[in-house]
Amino acid sequence: MKSPKDMRELFRNNEHVGTTSNMCPNYLQTNLISLPYEYAFDFLLFCFRNPKSCPVIDVLEPGQVEPSIAIGADIRSDLPKYRVYQNGEFSREVFNIAEEWNERYVTFLIGCSFTFEKALTEKGIQLLHQEQGSVIPMYRTNIPCHPAGPFSGNMVVSMRPLKPEEVDHAVKITSRFETSHGSPVHIGDPKEIGIDDLNQPDYGEPVDMDDDRIPVFWACGVTPQNVLQNARLPKFISHAPGYMLITDQFEET
Amino acid sequence: MKSPKDMRELFRNNEHVGTTSNMCPNYLQTNLISLPYEYAFDFLLFCFRNPKSCPVIDVLEPGQVEPSIAIGADIRSDLPKYRVYQNGEFSREVFNIAEEWNERYVTFLIGCSFTFEKALTEKGIQLLHQEQGSVIPMYRTNIPCHPAGPFSGNMVVSMRPLKPEEVDHAVKITSRFETSHGSPVHIGDPKEIGIDDLNQPDYGEPVDMDDDRIPVFWACGVTPQNVLQNARLPKFISHAPGYMLITDQFEET
Repeated sequence: MKSPKDMRELFRNNEHVGTTSNMCPNYLQTNLISLPYEYAFDFLLFCFRNPKSCPVIDVLEPGQVEPSIAIGADIRSDLPKYRVYQNGEFSREVFNIAEEWNERYVTFLIGCSFTFEKALTEKGIQLLHQEQGSVIPMYRTNIPCHPAGPFSGNMVVSMRPLKPEEVDHAVKITSRFETSHGSPVHIGDPKEIGIDDLNQPDYGEPVDMDDDRIPVFWACGVTPQNVLQNARLPKFISHAPGYMLITDQFEET
Repeated sequence: MKSPKDMRELFRNNEHVGTTSNMCPNYLQTNLISLPYEYAFDFLLFCFRNPKSCPVIDVLEPGQVEPSIAIGADIRSDLPKYRVYQNGEFSREVFNIAEEWNERYVTFLIGCSFTFEKALTEKGIQLLHQEQGSVIPMYRTNIPCHPAGPFSGNMVVSMRPLKPEEVDHAVKITSRFETSHGSPVHIGDPKEIGIDDLNQPDYGEPVDMDDDRIPVFWACGVTPQNVLQNARLPKFISHAPGYMLITDQFEET
Protein backbone atom coordinates (compact mmCIF):
# COMPACT_ATOMS: atom_id res chain seq x y z
CA MET A 1 0.00 0.00 0.00
CA LYS A 2 1.49 3.32 -1.07
CA SER A 3 1.71 6.14 1.47
CA PRO A 4 0.16 9.60 0.95
CA LYS A 5 3.69 10.91 0.33
CA ASP A 6 4.30 8.22 -2.33
CA MET A 7 1.04 9.08 -4.07
CA ARG A 8 1.75 12.81 -4.01
CA GLU A 9 5.11 12.12 -5.63
CA LEU A 10 3.45 10.12 -8.41
CA PHE A 11 1.04 12.99 -9.00
CA ARG A 12 3.86 15.51 -8.94
CA ASN A 13 5.68 13.65 -11.70
CA ASN A 14 2.44 13.07 -13.63
CA GLU A 15 3.08 9.34 -13.35
CA HIS A 16 -0.50 8.72 -12.32
CA VAL A 17 -3.68 10.65 -13.04
CA GLY A 18 -6.96 9.41 -11.64
CA THR A 19 -9.61 9.97 -9.00
CA THR A 20 -8.20 9.64 -5.49
CA SER A 21 -11.28 7.75 -4.27
CA ASN A 22 -10.10 4.51 -2.63
CA MET A 23 -6.47 5.69 -2.45
CA CYS A 24 -4.65 5.67 0.93
CA PRO A 25 -7.79 4.58 2.82
CA ASN A 26 -8.62 6.54 6.01
CA TYR A 27 -6.10 9.27 5.27
CA LEU A 28 -7.75 12.67 5.24
CA GLN A 29 -8.33 13.94 1.70
CA THR A 30 -9.18 17.54 0.96
CA ASN A 31 -10.63 19.83 -1.65
CA LEU A 32 -8.44 22.76 -2.68
CA ILE A 33 -9.23 26.39 -3.46
CA SER A 34 -6.49 28.94 -4.22
CA LEU A 35 -7.60 32.52 -4.71
CA PRO A 36 -6.20 36.06 -4.54
CA TYR A 37 -5.72 37.51 -1.04
CA GLU A 38 -8.34 40.22 -1.54
CA TYR A 39 -11.10 37.57 -1.64
CA ALA A 40 -9.73 35.51 1.24
CA PHE A 41 -11.73 37.11 4.07
CA ASP A 42 -15.10 36.77 2.36
CA PHE A 43 -14.32 33.23 1.32
CA LEU A 44 -13.19 32.19 4.81
CA LEU A 45 -16.36 33.78 6.18
CA PHE A 46 -18.40 31.85 3.60
CA CYS A 47 -16.80 28.62 4.81
CA PHE A 48 -17.45 29.53 8.46
CA ARG A 49 -21.12 30.09 7.64
CA ASN A 50 -21.42 26.86 5.64
CA PRO A 51 -19.56 24.23 7.68
CA LYS A 52 -21.51 21.30 6.22
CA SER A 53 -20.35 21.86 2.64
CA CYS A 54 -17.15 23.82 3.42
CA PRO A 55 -15.49 22.37 6.54
CA VAL A 56 -12.15 24.19 6.72
CA ILE A 57 -9.29 21.81 7.49
CA ASP A 58 -6.47 24.30 7.02
CA VAL A 59 -5.73 27.69 5.49
CA LEU A 60 -2.22 28.41 4.23
CA GLU A 61 -0.60 31.81 4.62
CA PRO A 62 -0.48 33.89 1.42
CA GLY A 63 2.13 32.34 -0.86
CA GLN A 64 2.54 29.22 1.28
CA VAL A 65 2.59 25.95 -0.70
CA GLU A 66 3.36 23.28 1.94
CA PRO A 67 0.47 22.37 4.24
CA SER A 68 1.30 21.37 7.81
CA ILE A 69 -0.76 18.21 7.27
CA ALA A 70 1.15 17.15 4.14
CA ILE A 71 4.85 17.51 4.94
CA GLY A 72 7.07 17.97 1.90
CA ALA A 73 4.07 18.56 -0.35
CA ASP A 74 3.66 21.40 -2.80
CA ILE A 75 0.00 22.15 -3.41
CA ARG A 76 0.88 23.45 -6.90
CA SER A 77 1.90 20.02 -8.18
CA ASP A 78 0.91 17.28 -5.74
CA LEU A 79 -2.73 16.81 -6.70
CA PRO A 80 -3.45 14.70 -9.78
CA LYS A 81 -5.41 17.39 -11.60
CA TYR A 82 -6.56 21.02 -11.23
CA ARG A 83 -9.11 23.38 -12.70
CA VAL A 84 -8.50 27.00 -13.62
CA TYR A 85 -11.48 29.36 -13.62
CA GLN A 86 -11.41 32.82 -15.18
CA ASN A 87 -14.10 35.51 -15.03
CA GLY A 88 -16.59 33.02 -13.66
CA GLU A 89 -16.04 30.46 -16.43
CA PHE A 90 -14.29 27.12 -16.28
CA SER A 91 -11.20 27.68 -18.42
CA ARG A 92 -9.10 24.50 -18.44
CA GLU A 93 -7.79 21.47 -16.58
CA VAL A 94 -4.06 21.24 -15.84
CA PHE A 95 -1.70 18.88 -13.99
CA ASN A 96 0.37 21.62 -12.37
CA ILE A 97 -0.54 25.16 -11.36
CA ALA A 98 2.95 26.62 -10.79
CA GLU A 99 2.53 28.92 -13.76
CA GLU A 100 -0.99 29.93 -12.76
CA TRP A 101 -0.13 30.79 -9.22
CA ASN A 102 1.45 33.71 -7.42
CA GLU A 103 2.59 34.84 -3.99
CA ARG A 104 -0.68 36.64 -3.24
CA TYR A 105 -2.73 33.45 -3.51
CA VAL A 106 -4.26 32.01 -0.36
CA THR A 107 -4.98 28.28 -0.32
CA PHE A 108 -7.89 26.68 1.50
CA LEU A 109 -8.05 22.95 2.26
CA ILE A 110 -11.63 21.77 2.73
CA GLY A 111 -12.79 18.37 3.99
CA CYS A 112 -13.77 15.64 1.49
CA SER A 113 -16.13 12.69 1.74
CA PHE A 114 -13.51 10.34 0.27
CA THR A 115 -12.04 10.40 3.79
CA PHE A 116 -14.90 8.26 5.14
CA GLU A 117 -15.27 5.82 2.26
CA LYS A 118 -13.00 3.18 3.81
CA ALA A 119 -15.09 3.30 6.98
CA LEU A 120 -18.11 2.39 4.82
CA THR A 121 -16.50 -0.35 2.73
CA GLU A 122 -14.93 -2.07 5.74
CA LYS A 123 -18.45 -2.49 7.09
CA GLY A 124 -19.38 -4.25 3.86
CA ILE A 125 -21.05 -1.29 2.16
CA GLN A 126 -20.22 -1.52 -1.52
CA LEU A 127 -19.47 1.80 -3.25
CA LEU A 128 -20.48 1.54 -6.90
CA HIS A 129 -18.31 4.37 -8.21
CA GLN A 130 -15.29 2.52 -6.84
CA GLU A 131 -16.48 -0.82 -8.27
CA GLN A 132 -17.06 0.79 -11.65
CA GLY A 133 -13.76 2.67 -11.61
CA SER A 134 -15.43 6.02 -12.26
CA VAL A 135 -15.29 9.48 -10.73
CA ILE A 136 -18.06 9.87 -8.14
CA PRO A 137 -21.08 11.77 -9.55
CA MET A 138 -21.64 15.25 -8.14
CA TYR A 139 -24.66 17.51 -8.68
CA ARG A 140 -25.67 21.11 -8.21
CA THR A 141 -28.75 21.27 -5.94
CA ASN A 142 -31.39 23.84 -5.02
CA ILE A 143 -30.16 23.91 -1.38
CA PRO A 144 -29.04 27.50 -0.77
CA CYS A 145 -25.81 28.29 1.07
CA HIS A 146 -25.58 31.15 3.57
CA PRO A 147 -24.08 34.04 1.63
CA ALA A 148 -20.99 36.04 2.70
CA GLY A 149 -19.91 39.22 0.96
CA PRO A 150 -19.95 38.57 -2.81
CA PHE A 151 -20.32 34.81 -2.37
CA SER A 152 -23.66 33.02 -2.69
CA GLY A 153 -25.10 30.01 -4.45
CA ASN A 154 -26.34 26.49 -3.98
CA MET A 155 -24.75 23.43 -2.43
CA VAL A 156 -23.08 20.76 -4.56
CA VAL A 157 -23.52 17.16 -3.37
CA SER A 158 -21.85 13.83 -4.06
CA MET A 159 -24.06 10.75 -4.48
CA ARG A 160 -23.58 7.12 -3.45
CA PRO A 161 -26.37 4.60 -4.26
CA LEU A 162 -26.89 2.29 -1.27
CA LYS A 163 -29.04 -0.74 -0.53
CA PRO A 164 -32.03 0.17 1.67
CA GLU A 165 -30.71 -1.86 4.59
CA GLU A 166 -27.36 -0.02 4.46
CA VAL A 167 -28.67 3.53 4.73
CA ASP A 168 -29.07 3.82 8.52
CA HIS A 169 -25.65 2.35 9.07
CA ALA A 170 -24.04 4.72 6.54
CA VAL A 171 -25.65 7.71 8.26
CA LYS A 172 -24.26 6.63 11.62
CA ILE A 173 -20.77 5.93 10.29
CA THR A 174 -20.41 9.15 8.31
CA SER A 175 -21.84 11.36 11.05
CA ARG A 176 -18.63 10.72 12.98
CA PHE A 177 -16.58 12.39 10.21
CA GLU A 178 -17.71 15.90 11.05
CA THR A 179 -14.94 17.72 9.15
CA SER A 180 -15.41 15.52 6.07
CA HIS A 181 -19.06 16.57 5.53
CA GLY A 182 -20.48 14.20 8.17
CA SER A 183 -23.95 12.69 7.70
CA PRO A 184 -25.90 12.94 4.42
CA VAL A 185 -27.87 16.09 3.56
CA HIS A 186 -30.53 14.16 1.62
CA ILE A 187 -31.69 10.57 1.15
CA GLY A 188 -33.93 9.45 -1.72
CA ASP A 189 -35.77 11.40 -4.42
CA PRO A 190 -33.19 13.59 -6.20
CA LYS A 191 -35.93 15.94 -7.48
CA GLU A 192 -36.54 17.14 -3.91
CA ILE A 193 -33.15 18.84 -3.97
CA GLY A 194 -33.39 20.04 -7.56
CA ILE A 195 -31.60 17.22 -9.38
CA ASP A 196 -33.51 16.27 -12.54
CA ASP A 197 -31.45 13.40 -13.88
CA LEU A 198 -28.96 11.28 -11.92
CA ASN A 199 -27.45 10.18 -15.22
CA GLN A 200 -26.28 13.72 -15.95
CA PRO A 201 -24.02 14.78 -13.09
CA ASP A 202 -22.59 18.30 -13.13
CA TYR A 203 -19.19 16.97 -12.08
CA GLY A 204 -17.72 13.45 -12.16
CA GLU A 205 -19.34 10.54 -14.01
CA PRO A 206 -22.71 8.79 -13.82
CA VAL A 207 -22.88 5.53 -11.90
CA ASP A 208 -24.87 2.46 -13.00
CA MET A 209 -27.33 1.43 -10.30
CA ASP A 210 -30.16 -1.07 -9.88
CA ASP A 211 -33.65 0.23 -9.11
CA ASP A 212 -33.56 -1.18 -5.57
CA ARG A 213 -30.77 1.15 -4.53
CA ILE A 214 -31.45 4.48 -2.83
CA PRO A 215 -29.42 7.54 -3.81
CA VAL A 216 -27.75 9.08 -0.74
CA PHE A 217 -26.36 12.60 -0.99
CA TRP A 218 -23.52 14.16 0.98
CA ALA A 219 -22.49 17.83 1.00
CA CYS A 220 -19.51 18.26 -1.29
CA GLY A 221 -16.41 20.46 -1.24
CA VAL A 222 -16.99 21.31 -4.91
CA THR A 223 -19.62 23.76 -3.59
CA PRO A 224 -17.02 26.59 -3.52
CA GLN A 225 -16.29 26.13 -7.23
CA ASN A 226 -19.99 26.76 -7.89
CA VAL A 227 -20.10 29.75 -5.56
CA LEU A 228 -16.84 31.34 -6.75
CA GLN A 229 -17.98 30.97 -10.36
CA ASN A 230 -21.18 32.86 -9.50
CA ALA A 231 -19.10 35.72 -8.10
CA ARG A 232 -17.15 35.92 -11.37
CA LEU A 233 -13.70 36.29 -9.78
CA PRO A 234 -11.10 37.26 -12.35
CA LYS A 235 -9.30 34.04 -11.51
CA PHE A 236 -9.21 31.17 -9.06
CA ILE A 237 -7.85 27.65 -9.01
CA SER A 238 -9.30 24.44 -7.57
CA HIS A 239 -8.62 20.73 -7.64
CA ALA A 240 -10.44 18.89 -10.44
CA PRO A 241 -13.56 17.34 -8.86
CA GLY A 242 -12.64 13.86 -7.64
CA TYR A 243 -8.87 14.51 -7.79
CA MET A 244 -8.02 15.51 -4.24
CA LEU A 245 -5.08 16.35 -2.00
CA ILE A 246 -4.16 13.28 0.06
CA THR A 247 -2.80 14.42 3.42
CA ASP A 248 -0.64 12.69 6.03
CA GLN A 249 -3.43 12.86 8.60
CA PHE A 250 -4.88 9.46 9.52
CA GLU A 251 -8.51 9.62 10.56
CA GLU A 252 -9.49 7.25 13.33
CA THR A 253 -12.90 5.74 12.83
CA MET B 1 -36.06 39.96 35.05
CA LYS B 2 -35.05 42.29 32.23
CA SER B 3 -34.65 40.85 28.73
CA PRO B 4 -31.45 41.17 26.66
CA LYS B 5 -33.26 43.80 24.56
CA ASP B 6 -34.18 45.79 27.71
CA MET B 7 -30.60 45.70 28.93
CA ARG B 8 -29.20 46.76 25.55
CA GLU B 9 -31.56 49.72 25.61
CA LEU B 10 -30.34 50.75 29.06
CA PHE B 11 -26.75 50.54 27.82
CA ARG B 12 -27.64 52.48 24.67
CA ASN B 13 -29.01 55.35 26.74
CA ASN B 14 -26.13 55.15 29.22
CA GLU B 15 -28.68 54.49 31.97
CA HIS B 16 -26.62 51.63 33.33
CA VAL B 17 -22.89 50.96 33.18
CA GLY B 18 -21.52 47.84 34.81
CA THR B 19 -20.13 44.38 34.16
CA THR B 20 -22.67 42.13 32.43
CA SER B 21 -21.72 39.13 34.59
CA ASN B 22 -24.92 37.75 36.14
CA MET B 23 -27.17 39.73 33.76
CA CYS B 24 -29.80 37.89 31.66
CA PRO B 25 -28.64 34.46 32.89
CA ASN B 26 -28.14 31.78 30.21
CA TYR B 27 -28.36 34.25 27.36
CA LEU B 28 -25.29 34.09 25.16
CA GLN B 29 -22.91 36.97 25.84
CA THR B 30 -20.09 37.86 23.49
CA ASN B 31 -16.82 39.72 23.25
CA LEU B 32 -16.60 42.31 20.48
CA ILE B 33 -13.81 43.26 18.09
CA SER B 34 -14.30 45.84 15.31
CA LEU B 35 -11.38 46.38 12.96
CA PRO B 36 -10.67 47.67 9.46
CA TYR B 37 -11.54 45.33 6.58
CA GLU B 38 -7.91 44.90 5.51
CA TYR B 39 -7.15 43.00 8.74
CA ALA B 40 -10.31 40.92 8.71
CA PHE B 41 -8.96 37.85 6.90
CA ASP B 42 -5.93 37.44 9.12
CA PHE B 43 -8.02 37.99 12.23
CA LEU B 44 -10.69 35.49 11.18
CA LEU B 45 -7.91 33.01 10.43
CA PHE B 46 -6.41 33.70 13.87
CA CYS B 47 -9.78 32.88 15.44
CA PHE B 48 -10.13 29.70 13.35
CA ARG B 49 -6.71 28.58 14.58
CA ASN B 50 -7.46 29.42 18.23
CA PRO B 51 -11.00 28.17 18.83
CA LYS B 52 -10.51 27.79 22.59
CA SER B 53 -9.83 31.48 23.24
CA CYS B 54 -11.53 32.90 20.13
CA PRO B 55 -14.70 30.90 19.39
CA VAL B 56 -16.39 32.86 16.59
CA ILE B 57 -20.11 33.25 17.20
CA ASP B 58 -20.82 35.62 14.32
CA VAL B 59 -19.05 37.94 11.90
CA LEU B 60 -20.91 40.96 10.58
CA GLU B 61 -20.53 42.17 7.00
CA PRO B 62 -18.37 45.30 6.61
CA GLY B 63 -20.38 48.25 7.92
CA GLN B 64 -23.10 46.05 9.44
CA VAL B 65 -24.14 47.07 12.97
CA GLU B 66 -27.09 44.76 13.77
CA PRO B 67 -26.17 41.16 14.58
CA SER B 68 -28.63 38.44 13.57
CA ILE B 69 -28.50 37.17 17.17
CA ALA B 70 -29.41 40.57 18.71
CA ILE B 71 -32.36 41.91 16.73
CA GLY B 72 -32.73 45.67 16.85
CA ALA B 73 -29.30 46.10 18.41
CA ASP B 74 -26.59 48.46 17.25
CA ILE B 75 -23.16 47.19 18.21
CA ARG B 76 -21.89 50.81 18.29
CA SER B 77 -24.02 51.72 21.32
CA ASP B 78 -25.58 48.62 22.91
CA LEU B 79 -22.68 47.44 25.03
CA PRO B 80 -22.13 49.18 28.36
CA LYS B 81 -18.53 50.20 27.63
CA TYR B 82 -15.89 50.01 24.89
CA ARG B 83 -12.15 50.36 24.50
CA VAL B 84 -10.37 52.18 21.68
CA TYR B 85 -6.83 51.08 20.82
CA GLN B 86 -4.52 53.09 18.60
CA ASN B 87 -1.08 52.10 17.27
CA GLY B 88 -0.98 49.17 19.66
CA GLU B 89 -1.74 51.22 22.76
CA PHE B 90 -4.90 51.37 24.82
CA SER B 91 -6.20 54.87 24.16
CA ARG B 92 -9.49 55.35 26.03
CA GLU B 93 -12.77 53.88 27.26
CA VAL B 94 -16.03 55.20 25.77
CA PHE B 95 -19.74 54.43 26.06
CA ASN B 96 -20.49 54.71 22.36
CA ILE B 97 -18.31 54.09 19.32
CA ALA B 98 -20.44 55.74 16.62
CA GLU B 99 -17.83 58.45 16.13
CA GLU B 100 -14.94 55.98 16.17
CA TRP B 101 -16.44 53.65 13.61
CA ASN B 102 -16.77 53.59 9.84
CA GLU B 103 -18.31 51.58 7.04
CA ARG B 104 -15.11 49.61 6.41
CA TYR B 105 -15.10 48.12 9.90
CA VAL B 106 -15.80 44.42 10.30
CA THR B 107 -17.21 43.28 13.64
CA PHE B 108 -16.47 39.91 15.23
CA LEU B 109 -18.57 38.46 18.05
CA ILE B 110 -16.62 35.96 20.13
CA GLY B 111 -17.97 33.64 22.82
CA CYS B 112 -17.74 34.64 26.51
CA SER B 113 -17.57 32.59 29.69
CA PHE B 114 -20.29 34.73 31.32
CA THR B 115 -22.68 32.60 29.22
CA PHE B 116 -22.08 29.55 31.44
CA GLU B 117 -22.03 31.25 34.84
CA LYS B 118 -25.71 30.64 35.55
CA ALA B 119 -25.19 26.93 34.85
CA LEU B 120 -22.56 26.97 37.62
CA THR B 121 -24.49 28.98 40.20
CA GLU B 122 -27.68 26.98 39.76
CA LYS B 123 -25.68 23.92 40.81
CA GLY B 124 -24.72 25.75 43.99
CA ILE B 125 -21.27 26.88 42.87
CA GLN B 126 -20.71 30.32 44.34
CA LEU B 127 -18.92 32.81 42.05
CA LEU B 128 -16.94 35.25 44.19
CA HIS B 129 -16.66 38.04 41.62
CA GLN B 130 -20.46 38.12 41.48
CA GLU B 131 -20.78 38.02 45.28
CA GLN B 132 -18.26 40.82 45.62
CA GLY B 133 -19.83 42.91 42.84
CA SER B 134 -16.55 43.23 40.98
CA VAL B 135 -15.39 42.74 37.40
CA ILE B 136 -14.00 39.22 36.96
CA PRO B 137 -10.16 39.18 37.09
CA MET B 138 -8.40 38.42 33.81
CA TYR B 139 -4.70 37.72 33.27
CA ARG B 140 -2.19 37.54 30.45
CA THR B 141 -0.55 34.07 30.47
CA ASN B 142 2.49 32.43 28.90
CA ILE B 143 0.27 30.08 26.83
CA PRO B 144 1.08 30.86 23.19
CA CYS B 145 -1.66 31.20 20.59
CA HIS B 146 -1.26 29.81 17.07
CA PRO B 147 -0.19 32.79 14.96
CA ALA B 148 -1.90 33.92 11.74
CA GLY B 149 -0.45 36.55 9.44
CA PRO B 150 0.62 39.52 11.62
CA PHE B 151 -1.22 38.22 14.69
CA SER B 152 0.50 36.38 17.51
CA GLY B 153 0.68 36.48 21.27
CA ASN B 154 -0.39 34.74 24.43
CA MET B 155 -3.76 33.69 25.74
CA VAL B 156 -5.69 35.79 28.25
CA VAL B 157 -7.68 33.87 30.87
CA SER B 158 -10.47 34.63 33.32
CA MET B 159 -10.24 33.20 36.85
CA ARG B 160 -12.88 31.90 39.24
CA PRO B 161 -11.76 30.58 42.66
CA LEU B 162 -13.65 27.38 43.49
CA LYS B 163 -13.87 25.04 46.46
CA PRO B 164 -11.87 21.82 45.83
CA GLU B 165 -15.02 19.70 45.78
CA GLU B 166 -16.58 21.93 43.11
CA VAL B 167 -13.80 21.73 40.52
CA ASP B 168 -14.72 18.44 38.81
CA HIS B 169 -18.32 19.49 38.57
CA ALA B 170 -17.40 22.89 37.10
CA VAL B 171 -15.20 21.22 34.46
CA LYS B 172 -18.06 18.95 33.41
CA ILE B 173 -20.62 21.74 33.30
CA THR B 174 -18.50 24.21 31.35
CA SER B 175 -17.22 21.62 28.86
CA ARG B 176 -20.73 21.59 27.40
CA PHE B 177 -20.44 25.29 26.46
CA GLU B 178 -18.02 24.71 23.61
CA THR B 179 -18.53 28.10 21.91
CA SER B 180 -18.21 29.95 25.23
CA HIS B 181 -14.63 28.70 25.92
CA GLY B 182 -15.76 25.30 27.26
CA SER B 183 -13.71 23.57 29.97
CA PRO B 184 -10.88 25.31 31.89
CA VAL B 185 -7.40 25.63 30.37
CA HIS B 186 -5.66 25.45 33.76
CA ILE B 187 -6.48 24.51 37.35
CA GLY B 188 -4.31 25.47 40.30
CA ASP B 189 -0.90 27.15 40.53
CA PRO B 190 -1.08 30.40 38.55
CA LYS B 191 2.72 30.50 38.14
CA GLU B 192 2.54 27.46 35.84
CA ILE B 193 0.84 29.63 33.23
CA GLY B 194 2.95 32.72 33.85
CA ILE B 195 0.74 34.60 36.34
CA ASP B 196 2.85 36.04 39.17
CA ASP B 197 0.25 37.64 41.37
CA LEU B 198 -3.48 36.92 41.37
CA ASN B 199 -4.02 40.22 43.15
CA GLN B 200 -2.82 42.14 40.11
CA PRO B 201 -5.03 41.17 37.19
CA ASP B 202 -4.27 42.66 33.77
CA TYR B 203 -7.97 43.31 33.20
CA GLY B 204 -10.92 43.46 35.60
CA GLU B 205 -10.53 43.54 39.39
CA PRO B 206 -8.93 41.25 41.99
CA VAL B 207 -11.21 38.92 43.91
CA ASP B 208 -10.89 38.17 47.65
CA MET B 209 -10.50 34.44 48.23
CA ASP B 210 -9.80 32.12 51.14
CA ASP B 211 -6.71 29.91 51.00
CA ASP B 212 -8.79 26.76 50.63
CA ARG B 213 -10.08 27.81 47.23
CA ILE B 214 -8.43 26.71 43.99
CA PRO B 215 -8.02 29.21 41.16
CA VAL B 216 -9.63 27.86 37.96
CA PHE B 217 -8.75 29.49 34.65
CA TRP B 218 -10.83 29.65 31.48
CA ALA B 219 -9.70 30.91 28.06
CA CYS B 220 -10.95 34.47 27.61
CA GLY B 221 -12.18 36.47 24.66
CA VAL B 222 -9.98 39.37 25.73
CA THR B 223 -7.14 37.40 24.09
CA PRO B 224 -7.67 39.25 20.78
CA GLN B 225 -7.14 42.61 22.49
CA ASN B 226 -3.73 41.36 23.59
CA VAL B 227 -2.91 39.97 20.14
CA LEU B 228 -4.16 42.97 18.16
CA GLN B 229 -2.18 45.30 20.43
CA ASN B 230 0.98 43.29 19.65
CA ALA B 231 0.38 43.79 15.93
CA ARG B 232 0.16 47.56 16.47
CA LEU B 233 -2.88 48.11 14.24
CA PRO B 234 -3.44 51.81 13.60
CA LYS B 235 -6.83 51.42 15.25
CA PHE B 236 -9.30 48.86 16.52
CA ILE B 237 -12.20 48.82 18.92
CA SER B 238 -13.29 46.24 21.48
CA HIS B 239 -15.74 45.91 24.33
CA ALA B 240 -14.29 46.90 27.71
CA PRO B 241 -13.27 43.66 29.46
CA GLY B 242 -16.27 42.43 31.48
CA TYR B 243 -18.76 44.67 29.63
CA MET B 244 -20.18 42.37 26.98
CA LEU B 245 -22.80 42.23 24.26
CA ILE B 246 -25.87 40.39 25.59
CA THR B 247 -27.53 38.54 22.69
CA ASP B 248 -31.06 37.16 22.22
CA GLN B 249 -29.74 33.61 22.00
CA PHE B 250 -30.75 31.41 24.93
CA GLU B 251 -28.24 28.66 25.69
CA GLU B 252 -29.74 25.40 26.83
CA THR B 253 -27.73 23.72 29.54
